[in-house]
Amino acid sequence: MKFLIGILGPTGTFSETAAVSWLKRKGHGKSETENVEIKYYETIFDVTESLLRKEVDYGIVPIENSLEGSVGETLDVLSSENDEVGMRIVGEVLVPIKICLLAKQNLSFVKIKKVVSHPHALAQCKQFIRGRLKGVELKSVDSTAGAAKMASQSEEIAALASEEAAWKYHLNIVEENVQDKDSVTRFVVLSRGDVKTAPTGKDKTSALIYLKKDRPGALYDVLGEFAQREINLTKIESRPSKKAMGDYMFHIDCEGHIEEEKIKEALESVERKVARLKILGAYPMA
Amino acid sequence: MKFLIGILGPTGTFSETAAVSWLKRKGHGKSETENVEIKYYETIFDVTESLLRKEVDYGIVPIENSLEGSVGETLDVLSSENDEVGMRIVGEVLVPIKICLLAKQNLSFVKIKKVVSHPHALAQCKQFIRGRLKGVELKSVDSTAGAAKMASQSEEIAALASEEAAWKYHLNIVEENVQDKDSVTRFVVLSRGDVKTAPTGKDKTSALIYLKKDRPGALYDVLGEFAQREINLTKIESRPSKKAMGDYMFHIDCEGHIEEEKIKEALESVERKVARLKILGAYPMA
Repeated sequence: MKFLIGILGPTGTFSETAAVSWLKRKGHGKSETENVEIKYYETIFDVTESLLRKEVDYGIVPIENSLEGSVGETLDVLSSENDEVGMRIVGEVLVPIKICLLAKQNLSFVKIKKVVSHPHALAQCKQFIRGRLKGVELKSVDSTAGAAKMASQSEEIAALASEEAAWKYHLNIVEENVQDKDSVTRFVVLSRGDVKTAPTGKDKTSALIYLKKDRPGALYDVLGEFAQREINLTKIESRPSKKAMGDYMFHIDCEGHIEEEKIKEALESVERKVARLKILGAYPMA
Repeated sequence: MKFLIGILGPTGTFSETAAVSWLKRKGHGKSETENVEIKYYETIFDVTESLLRKEVDYGIVPIENSLEGSVGETLDVLSSENDEVGMRIVGEVLVPIKICLLAKQNLSFVKIKKVVSHPHALAQCKQFIRGRLKGVELKSVDSTAGAAKMASQSEEIAALASEEAAWKYHLNIVEENVQDKDSVTRFVVLSRGDVKTAPTGKDKTSALIYLKKDRPGALYDVLGEFAQREINLTKIESRPSKKAMGDYMFHIDCEGHIEEEKIKEALESVERKVARLKILGAYPMA
């Protein structure tokens, strides 16, 4: 049996680190009869489209970083109105973001003329760049792995990218852990809507709610359904409904599995109070 | 009297549209004795630093867009822990985002080889680009105004930028309103902490809260202080505390001015329940 995972490419991104970590945890690809293949896409939207078109069995996409906050594109594809049963979150993976300075040879810092990376990685290494790479030219590219690829083609370019990217593009790690502050990125594993994950005893349920109208206390009422049942919300995040300024949807994660009685009850009560409730998935906590 | 406003540059960004709109509403710059000058900065952080260093009297920065959501960098500078009294929101401005295709001459579409813009503007015009500019090279730059500047230096480059940028860089508007979906960006006007705005009868108060600990119902309790007093929350947004994954602060906007009794009471009660409450400002609603 062959099974396919779609992620943001090219090879060597932090998404690949997430995919490898999830595969390991699940024990996938270890048996001789199971063949795992990773397919690379340019955008988060493309990853989810390929999942809906059944080109891949799973999609793994970043949803939030502990410094930068949520990844809007991922929240938006999850909330798509055309997709009541299309996709489901079946897992999550936490990846510590270790950024390394990579170059073709063991470049001394004085020889580096240009540093390339994804804008987020450049932002996360601001102090390092100011302190140790003062005056070098900075260039933003679409991914940290793309930056590593560029560095592999020039003697004067260094990339800020993952350790995995160093292996993939045969680069030296000039310095590791150059991020100003440590952070963790949370990825979600998506599958199609007909896939369900059984309760494990330590699960999370993700849902999307759209309130009926903007009246005092509407959100308070909804949160009450969780609080009264002592259900812990691990996350609540607003996203524009895209209808008007000031009109939001809420992404909510709670501890527990939707098949547990109190979670089911809470969500049923919430459903009666809101204009839209979409269960995004129930899955083991990372 | 001369007074200075700091915004994201270069000239011709949507931040400049916001500044001009705010100045008009306030009647600033109309008297002969008052001289208004706009200063341009590269990042939101630089705008707020210049305000704290007293290089400018006001800073105007984007805080959310009705399609893209919040601007994390702005929420983060507002929540800085070193700044309990440093900055205050004294106003807000709503700017409808009209994106135009700009070029040096009235280029026919077939002559355009490259389209440059800020990544958000490129994303917001995806359908237009696919439909009308199929196959042209796309390039991301730091600002829409920077893109307009590039277009003013080449016969083959078109920029996606504001109408104002067309005037500033002497470009033709090849086509206007090319965004796939209309959106509005909300800007906040910042001043230093000692500046207060008097109630006008139609105000908003913005605050930041950091909950004591992650227990079921902590956020629910806080929202109750508003709901019980029938105070409408116009926004609630979580941001990473930057301490650990899953640890958040909340940015809350409510209708009413902090000098109104019920708002003051609500916030005093909230303060007793949370680890940190920072009033970001009270100001007239746009």
